[in-house]
Amino acid sequence: MRLPLNELKRVRVFTFSRRTLERMPASENADNRGRVIIATPEQLGTVKYNSDGLVPVVTQDVTTKQVLMMAWMNAESLQMTLAEGRMVYWSRSRQELWRKGDTSGDRQFVREGFYDCDGDTLLFLVDQEGKGACHTGEVSCFYRSFGSE
Amino acid sequence: MRLPLNELKRVRVFTFSRRTLERMPASENADNRGRVIIATPEQLGTVKYNSDGLVPVVTQDVTTKQVLMMAWMNAESLQMTLAEGRMVYWSRSRQELWRKGDTSGDRQFVREGFYDCDGDTLLFLVDQEGKGACHTGEVSCFYRSFGSE
Repeated sequence: MRLPLNELKRVRVFTFSRRTLERMPASENADNRGRVIIATPEQLGTVKYNSDGLVPVVTQDVTTKQVLMMAWMNAESLQMTLAEGRMVYWSRSRQELWRKGDTSGDRQFVREGFYDCDGDTLLFLVDQEGKGACHTGEVSCFYRSFGSE
Repeated sequence: MRLPLNELKRVRVFTFSRRTLERMPASENADNRGRVIIATPEQLGTVKYNSDGLVPVVTQDVTTKQVLMMAWMNAESLQMTLAEGRMVYWSRSRQELWRKGDTSGDRQFVREGFYDCDGDTLLFLVDQEGKGACHTGEVSCFYRSFGSE
């Protein structure tokens, strides 16, 4: 039986999603909300890490477009982020991988990832779970403004 | 004559804007499009600079909410940004103050400035002039995404 193109697409995406889910514990990409991204070697090679092996990452809410936080990734956490569809940072204070939300429950599911013109900063659009991104309980870490207004 | 409160407010803002304009060359804050921000010493004291005396700055378009770029400021360029209502960065490659748009014409007028929960990252909402923020001619420096889509 020959399916119309749009049906074929739907089947392919569904199969890919199930496979992805089978490869990882449910807690890492619950309900397959995050998008698994297959980056090319060329794309990954464009990313420049600083002398500590880190690159700054800006995280933005895909729905509200609010900038939620800025954190850091090393090459391993970037690979994990793309492979799992969940934001995984490198914690500079704890010097360890930091899968956002594993402790707080406020996970960030990947929707899209960008690298900038110089390759030295990343931008991820995410589906932010729970209360928000900030450990203070605020939605965004940028909740205080300069000036009196 | 006693003016209603909303009239008083309008007069005060107008006077402040004219004074601000008189203190600076027209080229620095053309048409008073940028907002001059008076930060408190406490707010400025919250900002943490790295070992190079720099803090990362995320710049977002106030209208489209697009993240335009990430760059760096030292204490002097932050003070200039707030005082002029125009984005002034520190160029790490040229090791000099970089008043965005003085060369390209694509100036960034300050609308709001935030500091994050740790005080080690800034976020500015700007009115982006001209073609955009990126030296490549793109609106945003984050014009390339990971993956095939």
